[in-house]
Amino acid sequence: MSSKKVVELFFDVVSPYTWLAFEVMCRYRNVWNIELKLRPGFLGGVMQGSGNKPPGLVPNKFLYMTKDMERLAQFFEVPLKAPSNPFEAMFEKGSLSAMRFVVAVQGQAKDDKQVELVSRELWRRIWSQDKDITTPESLSEAAMKAGMSASEVGELLRLSSTKEIKDKLKSTTQEALDHGAFGFPLIVCHVDGKPEPFFGSDRFELMAHCIGEKWLGPQPKQSPAKL
Amino acid sequence: MSSKKVVELFFDVVSPYTWLAFEVMCRYRNVWNIELKLRPGFLGGVMQGSGNKPPGLVPNKFLYMTKDMERLAQFFEVPLKAPSNPFEAMFEKGSLSAMRFVVAVQGQAKDDKQVELVSRELWRRIWSQDKDITTPESLSEAAMKAGMSASEVGELLRLSSTKEIKDKLKSTTQEALDHGAFGFPLIVCHVDGKPEPFFGSDRFELMAHCIGEKWLGPQPKQSPAKL
Repeated sequence: MSSKKVVELFFDVVSPYTWLAFEVMCRYRNVWNIELKLRPGFLGGVMQGSGNKPPGLVPNKFLYMTKDMERLAQFFEVPLKAPSNPFEAMFEKGSLSAMRFVVAVQGQAKDDKQVELVSRELWRRIWSQDKDITTPESLSEAAMKAGMSASEVGELLRLSSTKEIKDKLKSTTQEALDHGAFGFPLIVCHVDGKPEPFFGSDRFELMAHCIGEKWLGPQPKQSPAKL
Repeated sequence: MSSKKVVELFFDVVSPYTWLAFEVMCRYRNVWNIELKLRPGFLGGVMQGSGNKPPGLVPNKFLYMTKDMERLAQFFEVPLKAPSNPFEAMFEKGSLSAMRFVVAVQGQAKDDKQVELVSRELWRRIWSQDKDITTPESLSEAAMKAGMSASEVGELLRLSSTKEIKDKLKSTTQEALDHGAFGFPLIVCHVDGKPEPFFGSDRFELMAHCIGEKWLGPQPKQSPAKL
């Protein structure tokens, strides 16, 4: 029996702001008395299901977000860097195969560590190194950097295209929508048996207040994990 | 000669999130080494000029914002409460006459104190007491609560409909757009001769970092001004 509060992080590696939230939550999983559950979902499905439009379509908002992300990346110590063609990377190529792969990783792993490592490598590819995340070769490279063997990766690629994995990604996406998602990250804190959803990477101070913890800034420890 | 950093707050009392930012900045004007400049603008003009759409039109986003505002109001200690018909209050009735009135107040006052008090009373009417802010009677009531006399208010109402005041509101709104606004609040910090714009009521920690100050939470003092 644990008194840890369950905190679910619904995420998709196509979303740069979600990377910030992902790193913050991975840092705080050992600082706050929480059980962090990584919930790989599909942002495209959330946008379609909620009828939301990407914020970057308004020119002033796109310019601001570019600047905002640059400042936040530095402040959060996450090596976020926009790809040369963000619209192509996010909307034309997208993240469907990548997120199916992450779901397959989660199905095979005994805990969330492997999911964390693979997701981080995928984010690093698309949102730091301007690299592809759609082909089997790209997914293999990311997984091998995360410490997997070639044969493990082969099996995961095979699993990625099964109905079971596709359905699992769909059902997690639907769960996020049922929690009221209209984008990612969606962080659902379970407080006294009630889900409290927080959207975005700018509600940590409020979230800490709601779960009875203290916000110590985006980098709560002296020696951050080297990203 | 002052070494205070100039911080401009572009605002419109029709925006609830801007109320939060307004109170935070009014609290920090005496905590941080800044010169706060209140810049009354017209949010309708910013939305039109930037081609942005109100976020509340996406149902999941509207539901989330309702919940988010409730939590933030409590955390920020601002008595924010949605009007019974937010769409009517924000989009049908709007804030054009109210913001012209605030601009007129600013034109007559020797410093920003009167602008602060009148703006707060207008916010309290629309975003706490579910009251009108469009008629001369409503504006009078707000101004008199802010300590003005009946004759001062009469003169301000007369000024509100002059070309000079209308043009001043337009030009401030245009200035916000020129700074990249796509909504309010827009907080422009002048750092080393360069404007650094921050959108929303959730970038204070980052803003403090950028201007070399410390974020002490939404309520930096032990005894908040009673709102």
